[in-house]
Amino acid sequence: MKNEVLYSFTYGMYAVGVTDGKQPSACIVNTVTQAAGQPNMLTVSINRKNYSYACIHRTGLFTVSVLSEDTSGAVIGALGFQSGRAGNKLENIRYKMLQEGVPVIKENSCCWFLCKVVDKMETPTHTVFLAEILAGSDRMVGKPMTYAYYHQVIKGSAPKNAPTYQKPTPDLAGNDGESFICRICRYVYEDQIVPFEELPDDWVCPVCGAPKSAFQRQLRAK
Amino acid sequence: MKNEVLYSFTYGMYAVGVTDGKQPSACIVNTVTQAAGQPNMLTVSINRKNYSYACIHRTGLFTVSVLSEDTSGAVIGALGFQSGRAGNKLENIRYKMLQEGVPVIKENSCCWFLCKVVDKMETPTHTVFLAEILAGSDRMVGKPMTYAYYHQVIKGSAPKNAPTYQKPTPDLAGNDGESFICRICRYVYEDQIVPFEELPDDWVCPVCGAPKSAFQRQLRAK
Repeated sequence: MKNEVLYSFTYGMYAVGVTDGKQPSACIVNTVTQAAGQPNMLTVSINRKNYSYACIHRTGLFTVSVLSEDTSGAVIGALGFQSGRAGNKLENIRYKMLQEGVPVIKENSCCWFLCKVVDKMETPTHTVFLAEILAGSDRMVGKPMTYAYYHQVIKGSAPKNAPTYQKPTPDLAGNDGESFICRICRYVYEDQIVPFEELPDDWVCPVCGAPKSAFQRQLRAK
Repeated sequence: MKNEVLYSFTYGMYAVGVTDGKQPSACIVNTVTQAAGQPNMLTVSINRKNYSYACIHRTGLFTVSVLSEDTSGAVIGALGFQSGRAGNKLENIRYKMLQEGVPVIKENSCCWFLCKVVDKMETPTHTVFLAEILAGSDRMVGKPMTYAYYHQVIKGSAPKNAPTYQKPTPDLAGNDGESFICRICRYVYEDQIVPFEELPDDWVCPVCGAPKSAFQRQLRAK
């Protein structure tokens, strides 16, 4: 079996909102799945190295905000490719604090859910939380972003701690040397009209917001 | 919260292959999710009333076949809207038996995985199985079918035992009396050119394969 076939699974794009008891934070996940309908329950798989895991483990509460196709790559980058341990990930993000102390993301999200952990299962790297949906939006706004849309249109990849992360397989046969890859999120810049070198100095990665200096030229296949 | 907002979650379409020890069977699920990458693990939520649940509970083994957009509604209907207790669901379906005794579906599926249960969690109605992926395809063929595609293009609905099933909300305001609904799978026939009554007697539901007699006229809103 080749790991690439796992890409045939279909996912959405979600922001999981958490709190460490003092400060709210959030991360990006694609593994949210409804597990039951009476009552409404969902599962989500989180890497135990993630700051969000520590928060959920501590409080037993989290939110799920369903991202829409209008959610910018910069928002996904800010929440998905930096650790909550490094600082306030929500600094430049619009969000709403629920009375329960956990944030829901307002950056073009379709709707949100407040979830309470009722059970969990451990894998070697990730914990699968089972949670009851305590409350949520009354209506959906916009079109939910699928992971395929994120991958194909926004050209994003999975963070290294995602359950769906696979080491990229170098396929540089057709590489003309003009492609530059973001070392943070693996976004590839390959604009045929504006060469990477001619981008302004304050240009940032459209997916994760990393500076131009975080990019490196993709090497040719040997 | 309105239950409709749960439709904002994104899913694929999968056939889960099982055996009762004697005869193979399969059902349709949309709740397959990768849970970890080292080793590769997935979760799937199955209603405990389902025959497939009884099989997985007994053998600890199942397969996942990823359906492609070319998989016909009739295949989904045969596997998704009938019980394995009622007879051989695979009678008219192309499949391959793995050495381990579980079937993988060959009806325009993209790829398949052989899975061994390693843990589970209970909800009031469904069991969430955590399984290690023991083996799988080396390559993917075709485009994976999303649940949205199934819903919008094939016009299918969720079986009553699916975790994502919601009771349909009658919205008959614009109903001109010419729509007929399948009582088995809730598929709505609303062809403007060929009235339902003029369909041939051997016409069957394009989603679940039910006969013409299984349809009833949708009532007008009062």
